[in-house]
Amino acid sequence: GAKGISELEKTVELIPKDILTIADAKRGDIGNTSEMYAKSVYDHFKFDAVTLHPYMGKDSLQPFLEYTDKMNYVLVLTSNTGANDFEKLELKDGSFLYQNILLRVKEWNEKQNCGIVLGATKLDELKSNINNFGNLSVLLPGVGAQGGSLEDVSKTFKDKNRKNYLVNVSRGIIYKSSGEDFAEAARNEIISLNKITSGNLN
Amino acid sequence: GAKGISELEKTVELIPKDILTIADAKRGDIGNTSEMYAKSVYDHFKFDAVTLHPYMGKDSLQPFLEYTDKMNYVLVLTSNTGANDFEKLELKDGSFLYQNILLRVKEWNEKQNCGIVLGATKLDELKSNINNFGNLSVLLPGVGAQGGSLEDVSKTFKDKNRKNYLVNVSRGIIYKSSGEDFAEAARNEIISLNKITSGNLN
Repeated sequence: GAKGISELEKTVELIPKDILTIADAKRGDIGNTSEMYAKSVYDHFKFDAVTLHPYMGKDSLQPFLEYTDKMNYVLVLTSNTGANDFEKLELKDGSFLYQNILLRVKEWNEKQNCGIVLGATKLDELKSNINNFGNLSVLLPGVGAQGGSLEDVSKTFKDKNRKNYLVNVSRGIIYKSSGEDFAEAARNEIISLNKITSGNLN
Repeated sequence: GAKGISELEKTVELIPKDILTIADAKRGDIGNTSEMYAKSVYDHFKFDAVTLHPYMGKDSLQPFLEYTDKMNYVLVLTSNTGANDFEKLELKDGSFLYQNILLRVKEWNEKQNCGIVLGATKLDELKSNINNFGNLSVLLPGVGAQGGSLEDVSKTFKDKNRKNYLVNVSRGIIYKSSGEDFAEAARNEIISLNKITSGNLN
């Protein structure tokens, strides 16, 4: 409700401007509604990026694509088990639905403001599709609470000499401790996670 | 932002309890997030129904399906032109993606709390799929601003002797007049729309 949204507004305001903020809002709606959602996420809350549902097609995401200084991460293959229900349906041409969406997002990326969401839990699909990402930014949730391996993911990108990816860890950090040491515990977890990736970025 | 959400809270509160309220929120997210969205829509705002994005699969909608006294409308074939991008992709078995989702929603309907969204602008697909709806409730947006015909839609259901459908008109009513007569203009539009359907319901 309004109270939670008000806290979200304050939280975004408190985050230093040089820290990337992603609204994991999973938006996707008809044009006029989508336009208001884009205004809300980018103009009102001032997030740097958003996650989007592809199901309703390009015109449902177009208002977000107009923002050239933002990053629009479209769901391609999500980290949950339900990804098998529709995302991995086989199409007439032998490809999977999520691969069709990947190709379309590459077409939509004229203004270099598109990315894809690919679950860190789907390592096999990451490996088998990594050559088709073009210059799309890749957002990989699913490390931590959901069981994805940061080490495996970052090694996969390193092996291909790609750096255009982003692994987010949310619950794994903010819920690291529910005691009074929550801030220190979160900080230590971040430092420890960063050590894993830094080896694979150099 | 918080101000808009606060106005939404007040609006829902002012709607008489015997009027069905549908949160056209198009939710769909991983389990723990979906659970909080379901609590927000049903426990906090106290909406009677919601619209849901199917892309991430059943587990992403499960928390909503636990509410047996609510109605969960899953997007199947939407009213916008972008519906052609993915919803109408042909699958390996010759069916379209939206038809596969329709079949799955029928399976999820064990507690009689599922429905589908099918755009009123897609009359041909409505006619060719109407025999496969089972006892799912059908929500049809797209009449009014988007150009769907209330007459055609209600006649299609009448011809099949089906009454389990709901046509929503939003902008066509609330934006009927921007003058001081906005309330009367909205009322007259509702009366006039109800005349069209009542003939097809009797």
